[in-house]
Amino acid sequence: MDGKICVIIGFGPGLGAAYAETFKQAGYSLALLSRSGATFGDEGSTDTSVRPYRCDAGNPDNLKKALSAVQSDLGEIEVVIYNADLAQFGALEDVSELQFEQSWRVGALGLFTTAKLLGSQMAERGSGVIIVSGATAALRGNVWTTVFAPSKSAQRTLANALAKQLGPRGVHVAYLVIDGVIDTEDTRTNFAPDEPDDFFIKPERIAETALMLARQDKSAWTFELDIRPFGEKW
Amino acid sequence: MDGKICVIIGFGPGLGAAYAETFKQAGYSLALLSRSGATFGDEGSTDTSVRPYRCDAGNPDNLKKALSAVQSDLGEIEVVIYNADLAQFGALEDVSELQFEQSWRVGALGLFTTAKLLGSQMAERGSGVIIVSGATAALRGNVWTTVFAPSKSAQRTLANALAKQLGPRGVHVAYLVIDGVIDTEDTRTNFAPDEPDDFFIKPERIAETALMLARQDKSAWTFELDIRPFGEKW
Amino acid sequence: MDGKICVIIGFGPGLGAAYAETFKQAGYSLALLSRSGATFGDEGSTDTSVRPYRCDAGNPDNLKKALSAVQSDLGEIEVVIYNADLAQFGALEDVSELQFEQSWRVGALGLFTTAKLLGSQMAERGSGVIIVSGATAALRGNVWTTVFAPSKSAQRTLANALAKQLGPRGVHVAYLVIDGVIDTEDTRTNFAPDEPDDFFIKPERIAETALMLARQDKSAWTFELDIRPFGEKW
Amino acid sequence: MDGKICVIIGFGPGLGAAYAETFKQAGYSLALLSRSGATFGDEGSTDTSVRPYRCDAGNPDNLKKALSAVQSDLGEIEVVIYNADLAQFGALEDVSELQFEQSWRVGALGLFTTAKLLGSQMAERGSGVIIVSGATAALRGNVWTTVFAPSKSAQRTLANALAKQLGPRGVHVAYLVIDGVIDTEDTRTNFAPDEPDDFFIKPERIAETALMLARQDKSAWTFELDIRPFGEKW
Repeated sequence: MDGKICVIIGFGPGLGAAYAETFKQAGYSLALLSRSGATFGDEGSTDTSVRPYRCDAGNPDNLKKALSAVQSDLGEIEVVIYNADLAQFGALEDVSELQFEQSWRVGALGLFTTAKLLGSQMAERGSGVIIVSGATAALRGNVWTTVFAPSKSAQRTLANALAKQLGPRGVHVAYLVIDGVIDTEDTRTNFAPDEPDDFFIKPERIAETALMLARQDKSAWTFELDIRPFGEKW
Repeated sequence: MDGKICVIIGFGPGLGAAYAETFKQAGYSLALLSRSGATFGDEGSTDTSVRPYRCDAGNPDNLKKALSAVQSDLGEIEVVIYNADLAQFGALEDVSELQFEQSWRVGALGLFTTAKLLGSQMAERGSGVIIVSGATAALRGNVWTTVFAPSKSAQRTLANALAKQLGPRGVHVAYLVIDGVIDTEDTRTNFAPDEPDDFFIKPERIAETALMLARQDKSAWTFELDIRPFGEKW
Repeated sequence: MDGKICVIIGFGPGLGAAYAETFKQAGYSLALLSRSGATFGDEGSTDTSVRPYRCDAGNPDNLKKALSAVQSDLGEIEVVIYNADLAQFGALEDVSELQFEQSWRVGALGLFTTAKLLGSQMAERGSGVIIVSGATAALRGNVWTTVFAPSKSAQRTLANALAKQLGPRGVHVAYLVIDGVIDTEDTRTNFAPDEPDDFFIKPERIAETALMLARQDKSAWTFELDIRPFGEKW
Repeated sequence: MDGKICVIIGFGPGLGAAYAETFKQAGYSLALLSRSGATFGDEGSTDTSVRPYRCDAGNPDNLKKALSAVQSDLGEIEVVIYNADLAQFGALEDVSELQFEQSWRVGALGLFTTAKLLGSQMAERGSGVIIVSGATAALRGNVWTTVFAPSKSAQRTLANALAKQLGPRGVHVAYLVIDGVIDTEDTRTNFAPDEPDDFFIKPERIAETALMLARQDKSAWTFELDIRPFGEKW
């Protein structure tokens, strides 16, 4: 598995970093795409197996350029983890058309752009993995998900359409229904400051499950699974 | 029920016309929004209870302008039937980013625009009905629904979020999962020229069910129902 | 529609009575099956269009005997409303194997018995309606539905299997996902004594929707719909 | 992980044997429950870490007796794999009440019996895993699943109810939606004799995914996942 390329679209602290750590440990070289162009590990590291790329996943030209640069720098992409998301919440009165569009651009259009560029290549060579960080909001709308649910559900049925098209051609597409609050500095500080440790999903555990999916034998692929902390009410 | 206003967004031959006929028979005055600005009934009719408005549901400014004109011409809108759709089908290789975006604009963004403008007004007065013409593609992706499924699923979870927000405030939001080919001149000619009558869903029967939904008592509302011809395999 | 026979399996106060009243008003002759052999309307009434039959829907021989008596007394059955249910709730520690079995017998096995006896006859003559009073518990389990959810989900997928088999042969099978507390003397007294009127589903409104389903044209049948009061959180 | 006890209810050639092999390799001691009392490995083996028990999972007293014997022989049970099933298929005309009941007994009632006996014990000590071999039929009925779908859907919503009750108390309940034909001598010979290797799900790959579930950290548990071969149409 050494040297295979894994691209993380939507790298950042929390889940993005956990994917990076886990897939690096598993021997993948990493391309990290984010709006900030951030990377991980020690600053000034000369580790050439991890490279950051600055791009906006909601901007098709921008994203295509970044993915082409990855291919040109690192070669054939084996695993894509689509983790880009604008988690925007609010009732109808609180959200704008702009938020509705931006959330869809980053959540759904970016996955479409990625699939157009990489899916056919993967299908032609008969291998590849596309894993999407999804959410329960993909399955149903709720009071606070006027913007988030439409974006995630578009993402999920697109992933489903891709799985059915690309699966028989050797490409494994999978969708993670993440149901709970991920343990990050941001959620600990701003979203759920008073919750105990048990309340949160540990991002490295999501990444472990993603790695397991990336390694599944093609005779027994999983398209969709849910992930939640043991104490979650659902 | 006489004189109440029903707006049909996405009027046209087939299902749009069936909604118009059915709700007119039930005593509603109609505003018919379509890209062509078409109307129905005899040309040159002086019937003032049916008015056409030209607009593109995928263009927020355009749609808002048309809906405002309806309110200014006819008054308070009681029923909205959201029937706008770009039914575009194709595998990943066959479809473009432009199609992906346009389909989402007409299917999902237009419903959001409508809800922003009319939903709060309906909620304030404590009554109103929003019925959406949906499809099975809202529930899952498939080989040919790379563009259609993400658009319809975004539409459905938006409708679901609206139902949960606006329902307790007296506004009934409902989603029709139409599962089958509607009997129209277009589908008879281009899509399924060799199928028997029984193969098709009669559009006036869908409209009847929509009228039933519009009349449901608020102690027992339906959010979602499926509609298919009796012979359909599913 | 005059004179057609409607059988209500699981007649009783509340929803059973509402089905009876609504279908009687619509011109059906009624056979009311219940464990108590109860009927409705004035005592001592000589109305021969409503007949009670005592039976236990969870006992196949018992139920078959009652349905055969209905056929012998009244003739061909056009509509079956399957409303039998043992609504038993409790966590794992609170419920017994006996409850698990009885709940399944009344909820699922009784529908199977009914379908075996009447479904084929309906299919042979090419018409008939089977409507099932279902619940949200059919879709997922929850803390208090250790017994109820397995019974209702077995009922729902059986109804679904019947719909797919009998639909193309002219028999309309439909499943009502009733989501909320029905307004009955029992629920008002024992289950939700402090709730306002708006909290409850009015049973006659469910019955109206059932009648609409029984009247749907076969070019546009509904298999499943949800029903809940407007203020319900879901 | 050495020495922990794994019970496989519904041991047999194919998937049962694959679970046994995989969990044995992972260091578990095994109790194998089956109607035949079969075991696996070399005949005459003196390996005491694998013990067969004869029982009928659809008979509560029988199953309780076998599980009590396991506890008495081997001690505390850490993992239960519920793999018992009567895969009976047929349209309404082809199946009997007896099949309907037996299928439910083995698929759903046996899981209830298991949970009553072991679930509370696991919850009291705050650890344990219950994994259920499910099927797509748990989600919907179809023409040939008049008996199978009600049994599997009852099983699934029971597992769901258990997950929500026992999860917060430290017990991981998971449901595998197996979607495809498992590669066994029986299916190769009798069910799909002309299909290529790629058509089948390899049972050892399902078992690998089950082992991964048994090892998931409780901050990120999966309740449900689907498994199908890459070429499957769905």
